[in-house]
Amino acid sequence: VLSIPKSDLPRGVVAYSSGNHGQAVAIAAESVGIAATIVMPADAPPLKLAATRGHGARIVTYDRATEDREAIALRIAQETNATLVPPYDHPWTITGQGTAALELLDEIPDLDAVVVPIGGGGLISGCAIAAHAISPGILIFGVEPETGNDTALSLRAGQRTAIPLPETIADGLRATKPGALTFPIVQKHVKDVVLVSDAEIRDAMNFLLLRMKMLVEPSGAVTAATVMTRKLPGKLTKIGVILSGGNADPGV
Amino acid sequence: VLSIPKSDLPRGVVAYSSGNHGQAVAIAAESVGIAATIVMPADAPPLKLAATRGHGARIVTYDRATEDREAIALRIAQETNATLVPPYDHPWTITGQGTAALELLDEIPDLDAVVVPIGGGGLISGCAIAAHAISPGILIFGVEPETGNDTALSLRAGQRTAIPLPETIADGLRATKPGALTFPIVQKHVKDVVLVSDAEIRDAMNFLLLRMKMLVEPSGAVTAATVMTRKLPGKLTKIGVILSGGNADPGV
Repeated sequence: VLSIPKSDLPRGVVAYSSGNHGQAVAIAAESVGIAATIVMPADAPPLKLAATRGHGARIVTYDRATEDREAIALRIAQETNATLVPPYDHPWTITGQGTAALELLDEIPDLDAVVVPIGGGGLISGCAIAAHAISPGILIFGVEPETGNDTALSLRAGQRTAIPLPETIADGLRATKPGALTFPIVQKHVKDVVLVSDAEIRDAMNFLLLRMKMLVEPSGAVTAATVMTRKLPGKLTKIGVILSGGNADPGV
Repeated sequence: VLSIPKSDLPRGVVAYSSGNHGQAVAIAAESVGIAATIVMPADAPPLKLAATRGHGARIVTYDRATEDREAIALRIAQETNATLVPPYDHPWTITGQGTAALELLDEIPDLDAVVVPIGGGGLISGCAIAAHAISPGILIFGVEPETGNDTALSLRAGQRTAIPLPETIADGLRATKPGALTFPIVQKHVKDVVLVSDAEIRDAMNFLLLRMKMLVEPSGAVTAATVMTRKLPGKLTKIGVILSGGNADPGV
C-alpha cells in the first residue's frame, strides 16, 4: 500500500469485521492518510471497538442476528465512493493473511504441520497456499469451535453447507458458511479440520497468558487448544501454531 | 550446564529469590536432574510460588520483614551439601543475566540505549558489560521504583547506601542496598538511574498487556514505564527496553 502513489489510493476504505481485519484495515488507512469505516457487530467486545476507533476509524455497528453486515458495508462504500475490503473470500485478503505462514516458515522452515483457525476461511486459505508453495509436504490443519463447524460439515458433504449462527466464546469464528472462493482452496489444501470446545479454548488461553505471557483471544487460541488436547495425529513432532488475534479481556 | 559431566554436577542447588531467579535455577536443576531448593518470601505472589514448584523445586518460605533469606539459604546449602546460587552479586549470575542484552543487540545492533530494571543490580551489571563490549557508545539506563531508590541514592553519594524495605508493586525490585560486586559495575557503566511511580508502572503494564499482548510483571514493566513517561533524554531514538519477568496476576 505504501508504494502506491497518493493519487492512486482509494478515497476511503470500508471493511466489515468482528475484530482483527477491521483493525488491520484501520491501521493501513491511517498509515496512508485515508478515511476508514469499519462495520462491527454491536455486541463486539468493547476492547475491539476501542482499539479500532483508536486507529482513527469511524465505527458503524449492526445487529448480528438481524442485519447483513455485507449489505451495510456495500451501501456505505457506494455512498462515500470508498473501496470495500472484504475480510475473506477475496484474493487480496487471502494473499495478505497468508503472510502469517510465510513469516512462520521463514523462522522455522522444517515444520511437519501448521494449525490455523477457520472463521471465514481467508487466513487458512492464504496460509495453506503459502505453506504448500514453500514446503509441499507440510500438513495444514484447520480448527473450528465445536458449535461453529460449518467448514468441517462442508468438507464431509463435499459442498458449502450453512449452519445457524453459532454460540461460542470464539467470536471471530462465528461464520455460518465457508467462503465461495476459500472453500475450494480448503478442500484442496487442508488435511483435516479439528473441533474444540469453549472449555478447551479457555484452558488454552489461560496457559498462553500465565505460562507463555501472551494475551490471545479465544478465536486465536483454538489452535493452541488443539495441540494441548492432542487432537492432531500422533506422529507430528514440529507443529506451527498460528495464534491470531489478541483482542481479549484479561479478566475473562 | 548441559555440557558438564553428570559426575561434576553439584548434588543440589539452593537459591533465594522473589521470582525469576528462583524459577531459572529450578528449570536449570530440573533439566540436569538435580534437586533444587528455592527460598522465597512467604508473601510472594501465589503464581510465582506455583510456577517455581511446577519445575520440581522444593520451596522454603521466609518472612521478608524479620528473617534473612541469605542465611536460610546458606544453612540449607550446608545441611544438604548443595551449591548456593545467589541471585545477584556473583560473577556467574551477572554473566548469565547479561545474555539478555546479548540477545537484544543480536536482534537490533544499532541501539542508542538500553533500559534495564535495577533490583539487586545483577541484571543491569551483566547487561551493561555485555552491551558495552559489543557497542562501546551505547547508553545504559537503570530504573528503580520511586520508593526503592537505593541505587540512585548510592550513585549520588558515591557509595553503597541502604534504605528501609521499600513499599512498591514492583516486588522484585525491593532490594535495600546495591550489591558489593555490582555497585562498582553500575558506577562505571550506567549513565543514569530513572525513578518511576507505582501508577506509572500500572499504566505501562496495562499498555503492554492490552496493546502489545504481553503479560509483564511490575518489576519488569518499569522500563516500559520509563520510556512511556519520556523520562530519558530526548535525543535517543532507538531504545532497547528489557522487560524482565512475567509473574503477574492478570486480574491486577
